[in-house]
Amino acid sequence: VLRVTWDMETAEKGGFDHFMLKEIYEQPKAIRDTLAGRIKDGLVDLSQEVGLTAESAKQINKIHFVACGTAYHAGLVGKTVLEQLTRIPVEIDVASEYRYRNPIIDEHTLVVVVSQSGETADTLAALREAKKHGARVLAITNVVGSSVSREADDVIVTWAGPEIAVASTKAYTSQLIAIYLLGMYMAQLLETSVVASIGNLLDELQSLPEKTEEVLGQADKIAEFTKSIVHHEHLFFLGRGMDYAVALEGSLKLKEISYIHSEAYAAGELKHGTLALIEEGIPVISLATQHAVFEKMVSNIQEVKARGAHVLGLASEGDTELLKSVDEVMYIPTIHDLFAPVLAVVPLQLLAYYACVERGYDVDKPRNLAKSVTVE
Amino acid sequence: VLRVTWDMETAEKGGFDHFMLKEIYEQPKAIRDTLAGRIKDGLVDLSQEVGLTAESAKQINKIHFVACGTAYHAGLVGKTVLEQLTRIPVEIDVASEYRYRNPIIDEHTLVVVVSQSGETADTLAALREAKKHGARVLAITNVVGSSVSREADDVIVTWAGPEIAVASTKAYTSQLIAIYLLGMYMAQLLETSVVASIGNLLDELQSLPEKTEEVLGQADKIAEFTKSIVHHEHLFFLGRGMDYAVALEGSLKLKEISYIHSEAYAAGELKHGTLALIEEGIPVISLATQHAVFEKMVSNIQEVKARGAHVLGLASEGDTELLKSVDEVMYIPTIHDLFAPVLAVVPLQLLAYYACVERGYDVDKPRNLAKSVTVE
Repeated sequence: VLRVTWDMETAEKGGFDHFMLKEIYEQPKAIRDTLAGRIKDGLVDLSQEVGLTAESAKQINKIHFVACGTAYHAGLVGKTVLEQLTRIPVEIDVASEYRYRNPIIDEHTLVVVVSQSGETADTLAALREAKKHGARVLAITNVVGSSVSREADDVIVTWAGPEIAVASTKAYTSQLIAIYLLGMYMAQLLETSVVASIGNLLDELQSLPEKTEEVLGQADKIAEFTKSIVHHEHLFFLGRGMDYAVALEGSLKLKEISYIHSEAYAAGELKHGTLALIEEGIPVISLATQHAVFEKMVSNIQEVKARGAHVLGLASEGDTELLKSVDEVMYIPTIHDLFAPVLAVVPLQLLAYYACVERGYDVDKPRNLAKSVTVE
Repeated sequence: VLRVTWDMETAEKGGFDHFMLKEIYEQPKAIRDTLAGRIKDGLVDLSQEVGLTAESAKQINKIHFVACGTAYHAGLVGKTVLEQLTRIPVEIDVASEYRYRNPIIDEHTLVVVVSQSGETADTLAALREAKKHGARVLAITNVVGSSVSREADDVIVTWAGPEIAVASTKAYTSQLIAIYLLGMYMAQLLETSVVASIGNLLDELQSLPEKTEEVLGQADKIAEFTKSIVHHEHLFFLGRGMDYAVALEGSLKLKEISYIHSEAYAAGELKHGTLALIEEGIPVISLATQHAVFEKMVSNIQEVKARGAHVLGLASEGDTELLKSVDEVMYIPTIHDLFAPVLAVVPLQLLAYYACVERGYDVDKPRNLAKSVTVE
């Protein structure tokens, strides 16, 4: 008798050991699918899903990003992206704080809610609070027909496909893509100065699927790096600007599944307290993909090196200066600073994955956590 | 021969073992001195130090708080205070991020920089960046004649007196007082709806020195609490709203001098990842002084209790409901939510102090840190 030992779940993992790993590898496709049909004649076209016009866009005088967990980290990237592309001030808030803090919202406010499931309880409550005060609400969600998508004025769907692992990966990168598209679309409507270089920005944006594949091609090297963090119970991430937002996401991934107490810091804040925790051998993962603050970041790395930290650097290809200051270094393909978060997060996702496997924990179902938080 | 065994330093500590403890106990005086002469005829009067008029105040359409470290945490409280009192949108930024992120600043922006020394390099650079873009800059500083005070348009001096310990305590609470005064003064100029209750707010504000003394009277009890955290290497702080801002400051104090890896979380965010780190016996310091979110906070506490955390609660006198959910509880005197941070931070300062002493570290000169960060 031939006994079939694999079950449906194994089949659905498509040959991968875990859903999380499968979903990490699905990111080039998720990015491609989220871009598909939304770029026409050298411009972003969201006219089918976003009802904003040139006129109504000009009425918006502030943007609020509201989300929880990983989606909040996407919103942090969104703050920089939207401010730089539209020059409208952007505020970012955790949904559980936003809904209770009596925020200043009116009919000139665009509230962008981000939720993979579209059912996150605090995010949904924040959306309702925003609508009550007359704001226009735009939802970025992965689930067509979800509560958030039904109640928002505009919806940008991230075509990441079903995400099963509790630790979100492809939903996050797809949220970033939706945010880039939104920022460029609004820049077009508002005719801000970036419109002159929109062709170049779109070329960079469309290079992301292929460049993400290149990063995935370095998985073995990242698995190697895991060895220097896996026996530690404390660890820090550092970054400046958008690298700080990515550092927060990388730190959350590691916490969620490997249970290492990691914490992300804006690199310039280190000297104001946390430097006291840096001692001999402690791993510090240092992101230096943002060219605009590269030199500053190298100097922060030297500070932690001087206290004996074991530094893993993440930089853009060609920035070999980092090699001099760090113990180990990973590279991402060269890209415009604005889009670096998509590439920078992938090695951090893999690092968390390998650390979890190495430490022997359940990758797809971490303790205490649910996939979507539908209660307060 | 009579040998004098005390030195100048001991004398300057005024009988306290460390500067930090002396400075913690100086807080009632620092608060009183910072209030002195600034309340006249039942109103806040900053006309001698702040050049804003009813007319120029109405021109302000956004406020940016910019600071580093502990002063940044004062600014976090400031965001809530200024938004609630003036209904002008407030953004808060770490100075080392602000100066490099191309923020949206114009002549309708009020930039509030907060720096104890007035010489913090990143804060000074942020101030210059703001002025370059035409903003009005208001400085809150403890040092008359400091660089920040010389270059700002308006200066509110915190009369905390010299702060010697690296870990800031009385400077922080005095910064909060300056922020309350600024918020109420602007509310008066703008004639917002809170003006109707300004008498009541001023009574609450002026009760702070005495109530702070009451909190200090519980020092022995807090020293007792220290025993349940001192042998742990990981610890979490939780809070909602302004309690979250205070939690960040309490966490920083503990890190700076006791070298325990503590981290503060907005309580509602816990379920989105960090709950995975909560295991049997881990100390969780839970702030529940904000009446507006008290019930929500109690439910967050029950979540961590259910995972076996050892919870130290901090609540207002009379809120005995917390007793049911926590392992130990400290109380602060009843006060308006807006002013609770001043009282809530004091037990956390003492907790950090006793933890440091108990663990045998140098209280006043923690490793790796300088009193003021005058380099980038």
